Amino acid sequence: MIKVGVVGGTGYTGVELLRLLAQHSGVELKAITSRGEAGTAVADMFPSLRGRVGLQFTDPAKSSLSDCDVVFFATPNGIAMQQAVSLLAAGVRVIDLAADFRIQDVAEWEKWYGMSHASPALVAEAVYGLPEMNRDKIRNARLVANPGCYPTATQLGFIPLLKAGCVDASTLIADAKSGVSGAGRKAETHILFSEAGDNFKAYGVAGHRHLPEIRQGLSLVAGGPVGLTFVPHLTPMIRGIHATLYARVTKEIDFQALFERAYRDEPFVDVLPPGTHPETRSVRASNVCRIAVHRPQGGDTLVILSVIDNLVKGAAGQAVQNMNIMFGLDECAGLSQLPVLP
Amino acid sequence: MIKVGVVGGTGYTGVELLRLLAQHSGVELKAITSRGEAGTAVADMFPSLRGRVGLQFTDPAKSSLSDCDVVFFATPNGIAMQQAVSLLAAGVRVIDLAADFRIQDVAEWEKWYGMSHASPALVAEAVYGLPEMNRDKIRNARLVANPGCYPTATQLGFIPLLKAGCVDASTLIADAKSGVSGAGRKAETHILFSEAGDNFKAYGVAGHRHLPEIRQGLSLVAGGPVGLTFVPHLTPMIRGIHATLYARVTKEIDFQALFERAYRDEPFVDVLPPGTHPETRSVRASNVCRIAVHRPQGGDTLVILSVIDNLVKGAAGQAVQNMNIMFGLDECAGLSQLPVLP
Amino acid sequence: MIKVGVVGGTGYTGVELLRLLAQHSGVELKAITSRGEAGTAVADMFPSLRGRVGLQFTDPAKSSLSDCDVVFFATPNGIAMQQAVSLLAAGVRVIDLAADFRIQDVAEWEKWYGMSHASPALVAEAVYGLPEMNRDKIRNARLVANPGCYPTATQLGFIPLLKAGCVDASTLIADAKSGVSGAGRKAETHILFSEAGDNFKAYGVAGHRHLPEIRQGLSLVAGGPVGLTFVPHLTPMIRGIHATLYARVTKEIDFQALFERAYRDEPFVDVLPPGTHPETRSVRASNVCRIAVHRPQGGDTLVILSVIDNLVKGAAGQAVQNMNIMFGLDECAGLSQLPVLP
Amino acid sequence: MIKVGVVGGTGYTGVELLRLLAQHSGVELKAITSRGEAGTAVADMFPSLRGRVGLQFTDPAKSSLSDCDVVFFATPNGIAMQQAVSLLAAGVRVIDLAADFRIQDVAEWEKWYGMSHASPALVAEAVYGLPEMNRDKIRNARLVANPGCYPTATQLGFIPLLKAGCVDASTLIADAKSGVSGAGRKAETHILFSEAGDNFKAYGVAGHRHLPEIRQGLSLVAGGPVGLTFVPHLTPMIRGIHATLYARVTKEIDFQALFERAYRDEPFVDVLPPGTHPETRSVRASNVCRIAVHRPQGGDTLVILSVIDNLVKGAAGQAVQNMNIMFGLDECAGLSQLPVLP
Repeated sequence: MIKVGVVGGTGYTGVELLRLLAQHSGVELKAITSRGEAGTAVADMFPSLRGRVGLQFTDPAKSSLSDCDVVFFATPNGIAMQQAVSLLAAGVRVIDLAADFRIQDVAEWEKWYGMSHASPALVAEAVYGLPEMNRDKIRNARLVANPGCYPTATQLGFIPLLKAGCVDASTLIADAKSGVSGAGRKAETHILFSEAGDNFKAYGVAGHRHLPEIRQGLSLVAGGPVGLTFVPHLTPMIRGIHATLYARVTKEIDFQALFERAYRDEPFVDVLPPGTHPETRSVRASNVCRIAVHRPQGGDTLVILSVIDNLVKGAAGQAVQNMNIMFGLDECAGLSQLPVLP
Repeated sequence: MIKVGVVGGTGYTGVELLRLLAQHSGVELKAITSRGEAGTAVADMFPSLRGRVGLQFTDPAKSSLSDCDVVFFATPNGIAMQQAVSLLAAGVRVIDLAADFRIQDVAEWEKWYGMSHASPALVAEAVYGLPEMNRDKIRNARLVANPGCYPTATQLGFIPLLKAGCVDASTLIADAKSGVSGAGRKAETHILFSEAGDNFKAYGVAGHRHLPEIRQGLSLVAGGPVGLTFVPHLTPMIRGIHATLYARVTKEIDFQALFERAYRDEPFVDVLPPGTHPETRSVRASNVCRIAVHRPQGGDTLVILSVIDNLVKGAAGQAVQNMNIMFGLDECAGLSQLPVLP
Repeated sequence: MIKVGVVGGTGYTGVELLRLLAQHSGVELKAITSRGEAGTAVADMFPSLRGRVGLQFTDPAKSSLSDCDVVFFATPNGIAMQQAVSLLAAGVRVIDLAADFRIQDVAEWEKWYGMSHASPALVAEAVYGLPEMNRDKIRNARLVANPGCYPTATQLGFIPLLKAGCVDASTLIADAKSGVSGAGRKAETHILFSEAGDNFKAYGVAGHRHLPEIRQGLSLVAGGPVGLTFVPHLTPMIRGIHATLYARVTKEIDFQALFERAYRDEPFVDVLPPGTHPETRSVRASNVCRIAVHRPQGGDTLVILSVIDNLVKGAAGQAVQNMNIMFGLDECAGLSQLPVLP
Repeated sequence: MIKVGVVGGTGYTGVELLRLLAQHSGVELKAITSRGEAGTAVADMFPSLRGRVGLQFTDPAKSSLSDCDVVFFATPNGIAMQQAVSLLAAGVRVIDLAADFRIQDVAEWEKWYGMSHASPALVAEAVYGLPEMNRDKIRNARLVANPGCYPTATQLGFIPLLKAGCVDASTLIADAKSGVSGAGRKAETHILFSEAGDNFKAYGVAGHRHLPEIRQGLSLVAGGPVGLTFVPHLTPMIRGIHATLYARVTKEIDFQALFERAYRDEPFVDVLPPGTHPETRSVRASNVCRIAVHRPQGGDTLVILSVIDNLVKGAAGQAVQNMNIMFGLDECAGLSQLPVLP
């Protein structure tokens, strides 16, 4: 049994992590910390966990995280970079669900996240936890930077095209739509039910923090800089990301076959038949990414549709997948729940 | 491995049954029938099942249902009553998720459902599949009538009170609210997104088919006729039933303790602490019923709050629970998924 | 032209008031105050008002509210009771959309609202602004206490029965469901989209502040104390209240005719034909209350269904209706917009 | 008073037309026809119109449409092309809210709509009813083809750029998202609440009927063929379209100023300040189109955000606007309702 700790279990990625870990037969949940909720039973805050998660939130200062085999950070940005060092020193492996270790260029990170990085040295060591790209490195990683939700859906949709060098890497467009849970469980006006409900809007068009993360990943694959326009939108549903990706064809190949080949052995990427449209609900509460490949009107523009559940493959599920890889478990352990539809 | 067949797998209770059965390690799904969709791969209709359910829908006439150990009917009312006889004769046990065998008084059934009953003889044999009430009878039943969604939430909330004889059985009120999936996956105008969304209404106030079903169950417990006003409402969510139950106190006892005692050993009924309010999402996609007991302002009126997922404890999950009991499996087998929140 | 001021225009009742006043040909909007947003253009905060409301929020201290003919308080509870005195002294009439002047028993008010009342003397003078009950008093009122949303829907449904003395006033039940905008535009976790969406729950069962308000109104009509169980619920829609009211018949009369007669001359109460079920969307964005009268199964329990838009007839619309009455305008002025459906 | 008839008032564009016409002081509603609902009071089908629309649906065969000054067709595609001829011959002017007269190339129309055109001769005469483009022609038109919802939002966003010749007309992308009411009030499974709710998907990526309509309009402005990739999506809200438009800059100009100049005198197009993001709810139930202009990261790709209410500016409201122009009324008559927010 792998001993697991969670730092910051009061947000949506935190409670989703608890849901998945509580159903994972290979792990033992040892500690969940929360400064604000120390002493509260986890199941009092999240009644969905009643009878299944018996732990209380503990004060980070008093917790026994260093006895764990792995600690997940489900915290706001800027926390893991302060606390990871000592855990790693104690031999604990770390998976950060926030953004602290995602961007290799520390100056770039500091610009987008508006703070100084507390552990720049660790950034270089951190492995970007997109298993479909980095499985081998994840296996031996001490520190995994779990990808963002938009970056997961977007990169999985673009990577085969860039690897094959068959599209113009300088004019990529990602028009992405997220459910509201992607904004977290924070008391903010713009994500109130009466604000975000029955409403649709773009946001952060001038620049969103996931842009440099996606650009970094795609550049690595393309072998050079990419030009990406990324427009995120908020759509009135709870879970789910739908990325609509546009790329201009530069080399003729069988694009459907390309994707099927690329993901043939991937347990959590499902390439749909030609002509279909993946729905976000077809992956709701599951770790699957479903992708469809279109070339409308036989023109020069490819349209790739990529859907995930932002809290699972876009956060907690991918983190568990990374843990499974890191500890030599079946990669699907604890992640076999079928999507909930309707 | 129990060999399982499903008749009519194209509605919401059908696909939910498939979701649960596909995750149940003790069953083998042998056949799914659908007259209209014969030849279609199940996963083409429900992409959420891709890679996990490999069956095609088969024509009922050509299916091998009689080789199964148990057959579930996830059909409209009036189908199971025609087909159950021959299956039972072939030694197959039957669980009907529709209403055909729920009402013991056949004339009453015919009045509410507007058709002649094709197998009145079987009605007497059928066991009403509410495990918390009939577990022993279910164990040996050949034919189980799986309860309706409103009746499940309502009866679980009223039964302890009526058993204890501490409320006025002649003035019960059940004000129940259902998510839209309770109306099924039929192409009808009133359940369109743009009709049922951002909208709330009562319906069937003059008389709903679940009224006689609830009244029958409560009368059995009360040991005599009960007076029940039942008002169902449609609320703009997909899954979930919230029953708000009103009963007038006739005998003073500790009502919280009464409920805790009544359900102490029930794996799927969770009595919440005093002062709390169960949310439907706290049971979303799970087989749990959560109940809270209130006595506002110390007055004479008890208010019981009871929530279930209408497709799970209110339909497919309870059917699987019944199957587990009938075949001597762990009652929780295949039903241990945690609720999905948010 | 009536000169109008609004104190606190940044919440939902505030912006709804602005929407209605901007379309009212008989008023001139002179000032909108907000401590927090002073200097901000109203239309920058609420782009729906762009091009139609040119005002900026002003600091309350610097505003010219005392030059207005009438000032609306769309503020949290406890503000109007401090500021009304001086405005009234300056000859300004006041309509408070909060609860400060709704409860005549000041001790009772202080118990439920958890603060000392700053102007108990004004409470006695204040007129409860339910036009269907108090039209004549409203006409000459200096200070109107605009009713709460639940109280409006509930009282309009119970009043004809209590006036006629045909139901048991000691066992009334109001099972009420509100859209989320009823909770206001405050940054609170429980009304986030991902908390309140796809979810249904009761709240405040032990006691809600609208209980004493409803009880006071019904007692006046009944001519003595009433026994009321009031259970509010949160339903995942933005606007709308649906009150399902239960009363036990004590005297046989034609209940449908009773309601039709009671509201025959009311411009904003619409009694539906027998057998119908009002939907909240049928009054969305309008000042209408629609009511249907049921007697299920011919039993002893009446079921009254009453729907309003909580922000219009339940708040801002009723406030404008009161203003129209107070200033001798056509009672429907500025309130003739048809409901928005779908 | 202009005498108005409506053919087919049982869908969403029909009931929206009734809502707007009932509030228009310059028109008299003479007849509403519906084959299926003849004899039904309009307000029985749409209780939101109770007390305001007294008409019954009449059989088209027995109606007096030819006595009207103008007849609106709120019918499925293929109806107006059969009935317009005789009305025009009788001197009645016609506004078709369906697609029958939108595409000038009849062969192209027949390909996309899968039927033979019944009145190809009228197609040439028909004026495309986008006032911002064709106001002068609309004034004298006998027959107006009211634009589709996606085409309205998309063309208003692209037209200034193409007129100015400052973007590459061969690589335009329109990623558009529609509320579910855009699919009409038809009993179809995919738009059920439990299918379309809490879900997001693209559809018709291979080719949508609005593609040739948009292409035709943009080509006229661009003075030559345009290359357009158009991807429509279904988003879980009732009303609203959000078009996210991408165009590559070919000539440097002040794009914000371009849009402000282009729409300076337009009563129903509102260009937002730089850096803002229009929300669909900011135009809910109103005839306004709001547009924002972005150039992310100073790159070569412009991002134009354009929102409308699909049932108002995208259908019924624009039809009333066209009527106002045709009959020399104030263009805003009956269209001055403020958006409903929240």
